[in-house]
Amino acid sequence: MARYGAQFGPDITFLGVAPCDWANPETYADADVMILGAPFDGGTTNRPGTRFGPQYIRQSCYLTPNGSRPSLALRVDALRDLKVYDAGDVMMYSGDAERSVRDLQHAVYTVTAAGAIPLILGGDHTIAWPDHTGVARQHGFGKVSMIHFDAHADTGDIHLGSLVGHGTPMRRLIESGALRGDRFLQLGLRGYWPDEEVFAWQAERGITSFFMHDVRDLGIREVTTRALAHVGEGPVYVTVDVDVLDPAFAPGTGTPEPGGMTSLDLLWAVREIAATVELVGADVVEVLPTAIGSADITALVAERVVREILTGLAFRTSPARTATA
Amino acid sequence: MARYGAQFGPDITFLGVAPCDWANPETYADADVMILGAPFDGGTTNRPGTRFGPQYIRQSCYLTPNGSRPSLALRVDALRDLKVYDAGDVMMYSGDAERSVRDLQHAVYTVTAAGAIPLILGGDHTIAWPDHTGVARQHGFGKVSMIHFDAHADTGDIHLGSLVGHGTPMRRLIESGALRGDRFLQLGLRGYWPDEEVFAWQAERGITSFFMHDVRDLGIREVTTRALAHVGEGPVYVTVDVDVLDPAFAPGTGTPEPGGMTSLDLLWAVREIAATVELVGADVVEVLPTAIGSADITALVAERVVREILTGLAFRTSPARTATA
Amino acid sequence: MARYGAQFGPDITFLGVAPCDWANPETYADADVMILGAPFDGGTTNRPGTRFGPQYIRQSCYLTPNGSRPSLALRVDALRDLKVYDAGDVMMYSGDAERSVRDLQHAVYTVTAAGAIPLILGGDHTIAWPDHTGVARQHGFGKVSMIHFDAHADTGDIHLGSLVGHGTPMRRLIESGALRGDRFLQLGLRGYWPDEEVFAWQAERGITSFFMHDVRDLGIREVTTRALAHVGEGPVYVTVDVDVLDPAFAPGTGTPEPGGMTSLDLLWAVREIAATVELVGADVVEVLPTAIGSADITALVAERVVREILTGLAFRTSPARTATA
Amino acid sequence: MARYGAQFGPDITFLGVAPCDWANPETYADADVMILGAPFDGGTTNRPGTRFGPQYIRQSCYLTPNGSRPSLALRVDALRDLKVYDAGDVMMYSGDAERSVRDLQHAVYTVTAAGAIPLILGGDHTIAWPDHTGVARQHGFGKVSMIHFDAHADTGDIHLGSLVGHGTPMRRLIESGALRGDRFLQLGLRGYWPDEEVFAWQAERGITSFFMHDVRDLGIREVTTRALAHVGEGPVYVTVDVDVLDPAFAPGTGTPEPGGMTSLDLLWAVREIAATVELVGADVVEVLPTAIGSADITALVAERVVREILTGLAFRTSPARTATA
Amino acid sequence: MARYGAQFGPDITFLGVAPCDWANPETYADADVMILGAPFDGGTTNRPGTRFGPQYIRQSCYLTPNGSRPSLALRVDALRDLKVYDAGDVMMYSGDAERSVRDLQHAVYTVTAAGAIPLILGGDHTIAWPDHTGVARQHGFGKVSMIHFDAHADTGDIHLGSLVGHGTPMRRLIESGALRGDRFLQLGLRGYWPDEEVFAWQAERGITSFFMHDVRDLGIREVTTRALAHVGEGPVYVTVDVDVLDPAFAPGTGTPEPGGMTSLDLLWAVREIAATVELVGADVVEVLPTAIGSADITALVAERVVREILTGLAFRTSPARTATA
Amino acid sequence: MARYGAQFGPDITFLGVAPCDWANPETYADADVMILGAPFDGGTTNRPGTRFGPQYIRQSCYLTPNGSRPSLALRVDALRDLKVYDAGDVMMYSGDAERSVRDLQHAVYTVTAAGAIPLILGGDHTIAWPDHTGVARQHGFGKVSMIHFDAHADTGDIHLGSLVGHGTPMRRLIESGALRGDRFLQLGLRGYWPDEEVFAWQAERGITSFFMHDVRDLGIREVTTRALAHVGEGPVYVTVDVDVLDPAFAPGTGTPEPGGMTSLDLLWAVREIAATVELVGADVVEVLPTAIGSADITALVAERVVREILTGLAFRTSPARTATA
Repeated sequence: MARYGAQFGPDITFLGVAPCDWANPETYADADVMILGAPFDGGTTNRPGTRFGPQYIRQSCYLTPNGSRPSLALRVDALRDLKVYDAGDVMMYSGDAERSVRDLQHAVYTVTAAGAIPLILGGDHTIAWPDHTGVARQHGFGKVSMIHFDAHADTGDIHLGSLVGHGTPMRRLIESGALRGDRFLQLGLRGYWPDEEVFAWQAERGITSFFMHDVRDLGIREVTTRALAHVGEGPVYVTVDVDVLDPAFAPGTGTPEPGGMTSLDLLWAVREIAATVELVGADVVEVLPTAIGSADITALVAERVVREILTGLAFRTSPARTATA
Repeated sequence: MARYGAQFGPDITFLGVAPCDWANPETYADADVMILGAPFDGGTTNRPGTRFGPQYIRQSCYLTPNGSRPSLALRVDALRDLKVYDAGDVMMYSGDAERSVRDLQHAVYTVTAAGAIPLILGGDHTIAWPDHTGVARQHGFGKVSMIHFDAHADTGDIHLGSLVGHGTPMRRLIESGALRGDRFLQLGLRGYWPDEEVFAWQAERGITSFFMHDVRDLGIREVTTRALAHVGEGPVYVTVDVDVLDPAFAPGTGTPEPGGMTSLDLLWAVREIAATVELVGADVVEVLPTAIGSADITALVAERVVREILTGLAFRTSPARTATA
Repeated sequence: MARYGAQFGPDITFLGVAPCDWANPETYADADVMILGAPFDGGTTNRPGTRFGPQYIRQSCYLTPNGSRPSLALRVDALRDLKVYDAGDVMMYSGDAERSVRDLQHAVYTVTAAGAIPLILGGDHTIAWPDHTGVARQHGFGKVSMIHFDAHADTGDIHLGSLVGHGTPMRRLIESGALRGDRFLQLGLRGYWPDEEVFAWQAERGITSFFMHDVRDLGIREVTTRALAHVGEGPVYVTVDVDVLDPAFAPGTGTPEPGGMTSLDLLWAVREIAATVELVGADVVEVLPTAIGSADITALVAERVVREILTGLAFRTSPARTATA
Repeated sequence: MARYGAQFGPDITFLGVAPCDWANPETYADADVMILGAPFDGGTTNRPGTRFGPQYIRQSCYLTPNGSRPSLALRVDALRDLKVYDAGDVMMYSGDAERSVRDLQHAVYTVTAAGAIPLILGGDHTIAWPDHTGVARQHGFGKVSMIHFDAHADTGDIHLGSLVGHGTPMRRLIESGALRGDRFLQLGLRGYWPDEEVFAWQAERGITSFFMHDVRDLGIREVTTRALAHVGEGPVYVTVDVDVLDPAFAPGTGTPEPGGMTSLDLLWAVREIAATVELVGADVVEVLPTAIGSADITALVAERVVREILTGLAFRTSPARTATA
Repeated sequence: MARYGAQFGPDITFLGVAPCDWANPETYADADVMILGAPFDGGTTNRPGTRFGPQYIRQSCYLTPNGSRPSLALRVDALRDLKVYDAGDVMMYSGDAERSVRDLQHAVYTVTAAGAIPLILGGDHTIAWPDHTGVARQHGFGKVSMIHFDAHADTGDIHLGSLVGHGTPMRRLIESGALRGDRFLQLGLRGYWPDEEVFAWQAERGITSFFMHDVRDLGIREVTTRALAHVGEGPVYVTVDVDVLDPAFAPGTGTPEPGGMTSLDLLWAVREIAATVELVGADVVEVLPTAIGSADITALVAERVVREILTGLAFRTSPARTATA
Repeated sequence: MARYGAQFGPDITFLGVAPCDWANPETYADADVMILGAPFDGGTTNRPGTRFGPQYIRQSCYLTPNGSRPSLALRVDALRDLKVYDAGDVMMYSGDAERSVRDLQHAVYTVTAAGAIPLILGGDHTIAWPDHTGVARQHGFGKVSMIHFDAHADTGDIHLGSLVGHGTPMRRLIESGALRGDRFLQLGLRGYWPDEEVFAWQAERGITSFFMHDVRDLGIREVTTRALAHVGEGPVYVTVDVDVLDPAFAPGTGTPEPGGMTSLDLLWAVREIAATVELVGADVVEVLPTAIGSADITALVAERVVREILTGLAFRTSPARTATA
């Protein structure tokens, strides 16, 4: 039996949705969306602790976990309009990155093959490799575009002697063919990493990046419109590193980078994307919580990221669909 | 004698203004404005602690409490240009919400009847019910408009088996007739509460709401202009829940909601409103401080909200009045 | 249906024991012990937040919640040797102390009448009144002795205009006849409260107190021996206010008093008492946690208090019983 | 006028005792004891912040500041049995240690000359120099013994190019003749400072030291008895650096040293000494608070140190005096 | 030998650049830029602790300190393109402001005279007086313009009886002739200090100020353009008080003022200025860190301020120079 | 070149001792003692972060890192009397426990073979396996006794599917023959882990354990005497898990267990052991610091543990050796 419940912390589900077992697709045959926890922080180069991300994200809401969250903005209730399950955490030992990555990929593939859209709660950004790959195994290598919210490009090659880690997942995805460079769009980059050589590598692969100065100068609406135009038709995977936010909005993360996005912009952008594209998977990563419940603003905003993605998804197929707010 | 001093923490006044006794109007016969503490958190559904709001707001300023604060922007000194008193805290036992609400309403009415504008330091948002009602008893039920800064609508009906609490005050005000729905304007709403049914109830009463996406898309100047146009002539009460701010700007609150306002926008808006309307009362609520003095940014910004309201009030009657900055 | 789950935080049970519904005794017909949460902090005179006590105590252990905890010292496994259930939290609104106290008393009585020993997780010390009374309704008013670990006597009369609060429960118990003064033993008192008048009242009722200077001078073994001799035969209720510990060992509490007990002494003493007397109920109160899981040392030690009581209980009826360590 | 109120934080008095002006002895002609704040941290070699010591110590108690604190242990109420005033803070600019030290010495001398016993709230340990000197100017240079609770000897010579600082006050006192080496007793020393040379200097002056290993091996009662025997007859000044406590009991201090005293032992010892000797002054220093009120355990225990000294003083002249507990 | 290393914390250099000794110009004969620590907080009127600013800023980056930081935005690597040294901290005793200021001025002058541009890490804002003066001694009194990012004007006259402190440095600079009023531009002012009299003094000297409402209404690009136009040709000194940022972005500072700038705007503005003017020196002050490394967002953004200034400097002389992003 | 400096945080040495390169024994040919950092937390089952242990321990002292620390108690200066080097951290990737353990074992063996006593700064307790093994490879498998301070036995078999982790190192040591069961002494055990089966396994191997109740009842002197008698003659390795301390004394650790040792007892015990036995290596593990420098009491006491071991070592060969204090 693969259902493990929560690896760290109590065995509860996201906002009270029904539990299931990812290894037994019959337990979620009617699922539209599957929440999966990936409590792994063995790939972190600085402060660890994102293993507690899934636990804290699941506990961050101050309302009753009743399986209902009506959106004020879009007037849909994704948890009711969609069939959402939570399979608990994939068991991942942070001291063995290779095994953990392999097991997570298997889980994501299983869920996707069963017809559900996986929404994965990290964990550090290492998991984007198995997350996207697991989805691509079902939808086709090179077929699934990626929109990547992050302060960092995450296209490093080797770190601390390993190919597996939170600075390298996008390199692995491109190299393996799971992701095509021209279908990979980065949004929110800033700062001083990676170096020229890596950027040259990115350019060769046709990777497109929007920087924070683009967001400031063009506004989030225009940047999102351009991003959507860039990825075009076909299945899309969204990966959100909370450090795309300014540290003021997401202090609980391991490699914060000043000069980032506001929560107001990010929450709108992920919802808009989910309401527009053919979303086949998403993850929210690098949440390093330091308090529980509503006292921690990073897990709180990460939970809202998940919720806005769900809301966008629900809105996309809503009969009452109108122009997004 | 009703003067109690501070219920929690030391007996000091707001920025060093003169103390008085709210139950003895002769002790503040010449008052323009009265500061009242309402250290009640018995109506809180999540983290409590706002009982320390009045104490922390009074202690948050890093300058000497000398009864003078000249505004750089408007070049008035409200604490000198106006006659401001601080009556200390109304004694409120958080374990008895009904008695506490009754006693606070009596205090607010007494102050208002004596000709002073009450500025109440919460406490949780439960107090908006007795605050506005106390003012309306003097100015007339249905006569006092309300501008409500908040992430949440606060128009729930019953919570935890009680009519009295921090999610229901606006429902009580509308139901009692103290506040007319078409004179009630909400600003800063976002997120996932309340549900469709409550919103339908709001629509029936003619309540108008500006969402955070309106603030992002229109700008705070335009939203404020529209809000002022909506409430029109006549007395206005302003209630500011600090969770209208993004948690980055006000982490010290019990039910924070990501995607909120900036301090820069809020401080300008409350000052602009106070400089424009016939202000008859105001409160600042849901400050749940975790540090003292300038180390706590939530009580700090709440104190500045009070100060900007005072500055707007002073500017409105200032001989040197010009267009606000 | 009375089972509410957790009022604050996720619906989980203490260390993974089976859930049940306190209002339906058939759901726990074979119970030896019942865990009940009492998330009430409306009676607090200083910092609130003990409403989160039950949630944090349930989440404090760093091991898997597998319903097993073998004691290294006594070589019993209370969670297996005894039949322990967790009925979740009694729903208590902190803004209505009277109703909350009434409802808790009913729940404690129901559980006791069904043959289980209630172990109640507070909440503030207000709950000792309904806790002991609920037990005494079954075992007889005046029949149930109380051993009270605390820095404070909690025999005040009225506070903030109310008879119900965390400084007065022992007065209510004595006055109602639920508890006889000569069967009430206090352990760990120190400091400067209550005053001479209250102590005179205590002396009249024949209440016995051991001070912290007794613990220092006699040692915890001797003090415990004397306490046990004092309460003598018959049913005993134990109430543990975590502020009996020095603030170094339990910083997360609302009215900490320096000069207190060590965790090593307290954990041994409660286990020794549970292993010796006819225990009919217990509570652990005034846990005001500020972090989750093992990062919070106050909920952690409170959870260990519960566990040591359970271990003592299990040892008392263990076939392998030998002299306690 | 010398009364300044509180230099940092609100103008309140210690536990609600009457305010006065130290420079006008007629405002406290009947004083037995005078509280003085010395909010100076310019002499600190590591973390600063003790300037907030007086403010936080005055606000640390969770009970009403009503000028009464009946001791459970000794059954005296020092704040009523003695005439205690609080003169607020001596104004001290941390950027000018020499001027600040001079002004404080003048204040302490003035108070002492007027017949009151000064209890000074630090501030860093720099203040022990002016504190003891101010007292010695009245009682005679070389006449006032000192009992010094500390992890460190504080007999360094020069630090950061200055004779004035928190590592050197005892050297200054000995050199100036204010304090005689053979009347100087240190209690609680441990660790690795100062070096052999300074210890040789101490030995030459006849200074006696009890180490923490003495406290562990002999017990606090025996060590205190020996200390009292050592200082013998005549006036005694007590200086308590909170870092004499283990960091577990007093984490809020700038140079914490593991392996220290418990609060239970320290509180008893200072009370015992105050109840026994001819106390002519005392200070409590190096409180570097990080939270307000009862949430900060270091200011809390420091406040209790002051209170136990007061209780000992009251007990010494109490008609009901019996052997101390 | 003047090299002292770090006065507080470990002896390390900024991002791994080469160490040198400021008093021996031959150790940095080829320097373009010199990092100097000024760990002084004796001039602080509220919370101290900025003495740890240099240590924490040097340790805040989560990447390896390898002496390389390629800018994503401008594609220069300032640490390689420029010759940057770190001379460690100037030894400054916070208890002697006058001596400390004198010694710092001497160090800044020495470095400037040797041809390097000093970038000084504060410390409180007191240091702006010796910083600018040290530079002006080389470039000419009245010749060096100043762009001043701050919430406060810092043109007070006397504080706590001293001319030297963190509220007065700009007054000292104007009075001494080091800085001409018409070459002094303030950016980011807001709030309630200083008063009308000081502002009148500022007006007489021809000082120009941009307020936060200007930044909101005009945007940071336009405000920066106007600021650059105002200071015109010739050498420019930039001083950045981190409290120009909103407390959400820089909570770790002693006198935070709500309603401030975002990190995104500040980082761009300082880089733009450094890329445009003839920069002859800069400082970053009032960083009061409370955590180490990337867990502290204030030291983190302060470090990025330094880095963006370096990047602007490098870009200005870069062969690849193009329009700034 | 194997010298890596510090993997996390700045490249500094323990208290300012000389740096060296562990892979080049000629760089420390005269070494008595070698400090090695093992910044690995991939084996942690609960909160991670001990990778920062070496960095924080090296920075915790508030005195100048001048390579001298004269012991007040024993009057030796270990850093001068012994030749101590710091080789920085062994590079360990937490995402690959097996490789990290192998590399650390190699480093420890290299240092030991070169004649130095390794003192290793953890890191989680996983490292005890390579630490002791590396020493045993030089001194002989089965020849090196171990004294183990811990709340937990750490003799689990498999955790999270891996043989390598912080709950299993002692099992690995016994199984491999590096450590003989009858030469393995545990001190400080308490609580509820491991279970009966593991304890049976321990009994079969002849492992001896002292519990915290032994320390309370016998005193630390007697327990230490018995422990020394048990291990007898021959080389001894000491491993100190800081969670042997009560959480009050060491809150910064991942699996804290209430009811533990005091710092005063632990510091004496490790010094006494080092002064008595033939010490061939030691480690201090499970320090999970949350603040830097003297603000963190856990790294602080861990650093003092290292220092007391060094002091004991120095005393053992000191000409002035007398009975330990």
